[in-house]
Amino acid sequence: MTKLTPLLQQLIEALRILPGVGPKSAQRMAFQLLERNRGGGVRLGAALTAAMAGIGQCQQCRTFAEAPLCAICSDPKRQQADVLCIVGSAADQLAIEQTGQFQGRYFVLMGYLSPLDGIGPTELGLEQLSELLAKGQINEVILATNPTVEGEATAFYIAELCQQYGCSVTRLAQGLPVGGELEYIDGTTLAHAFSGRKRF
Amino acid sequence: MTKLTPLLQQLIEALRILPGVGPKSAQRMAFQLLERNRGGGVRLGAALTAAMAGIGQCQQCRTFAEAPLCAICSDPKRQQADVLCIVGSAADQLAIEQTGQFQGRYFVLMGYLSPLDGIGPTELGLEQLSELLAKGQINEVILATNPTVEGEATAFYIAELCQQYGCSVTRLAQGLPVGGELEYIDGTTLAHAFSGRKRF
Ligand SMILES: [Zn+2]
Ligand SMILES: [Zn+2]
Repeated sequence: MTKLTPLLQQLIEALRILPGVGPKSAQRMAFQLLERNRGGGVRLGAALTAAMAGIGQCQQCRTFAEAPLCAICSDPKRQQADVLCIVGSAADQLAIEQTGQFQGRYFVLMGYLSPLDGIGPTELGLEQLSELLAKGQINEVILATNPTVEGEATAFYIAELCQQYGCSVTRLAQGLPVGGELEYIDGTTLAHAFSGRKRF
Repeated sequence: MTKLTPLLQQLIEALRILPGVGPKSAQRMAFQLLERNRGGGVRLGAALTAAMAGIGQCQQCRTFAEAPLCAICSDPKRQQADVLCIVGSAADQLAIEQTGQFQGRYFVLMGYLSPLDGIGPTELGLEQLSELLAKGQINEVILATNPTVEGEATAFYIAELCQQYGCSVTRLAQGLPVGGELEYIDGTTLAHAFSGRKRF
């Protein structure tokens, strides 16, 4: 092994797309799978292939789904809810669901406004959000975006949109650590932030 | 998304086989691939599948190879070498090759003796090593095993084997940090350890 074999080189290169994985740890992962867990490597390869092909986005709320509508959007109880919670990512949505405090509907932006990265209203599905609000079923929109610069800017943009449709707009209570990421906040804090939400 | 979708759950589960990846970071990896880098996820899936199927072990030295013999064992210059370096893993072999100090042959154990884990002489290919030594082409065996308890125990076992075949046995010079792992040592230290190797 003067150099790595081609397939090994490709594997190490490909592992580096994972967040937090540098060249040395990619090499370590590749060697460890090949030496000790080839079955696991095969399963991971298949799981990635299946997930990338089979997981799409819900036509209504944009969260990850394997059918046209996600489980929440297909739930008759929640379809009647008049509260819509807007989050930046599916991970944030999952964190909120796990508090068990919210029974309404969601809209998942899958990002925040970032003109420099080419992420505008279209990329976040805001036309789709407008159509939803235009139906008049939503009375309250809860802005549960990250308490970061991008999250706040996106929240302001969406708040204006909501006011055009006469929805009341609230945001999660202060108490979220400034600059933090919603996905990593513990359930209790998040539940409190929910119940203490205030008018935007 | 009351719960994760089945494919997403499978993906997060499968990512946890990677060393150093816990439940939270597996979830983060899965979401990030799906949100921002599906192309990368597809490539990683394909690279894993191809590597697990296409990378075998060299029939002669046991290192990773995509052909019956690896590049070093197929090299006519190195085939004539009478020095054999025994390492614990392909990563250790790669670290030694990268020093450029060694022109001989290798034997890659792919592990260390560990009776409790069911790893004995057969699992490390020591019958194969005996056959190689029996041919009488090897004059010196360099034991480049990790300076750990398992590495030392394995080195002692192999040293006895070599003496049966009248090979001289050396080990890498002290200077390797005790309890450390060979794969993570810088090239200069490793090169010094090589040139200062002493009789076992
Ligand atoms: Zn949905
Ligand atoms: Zn070989």
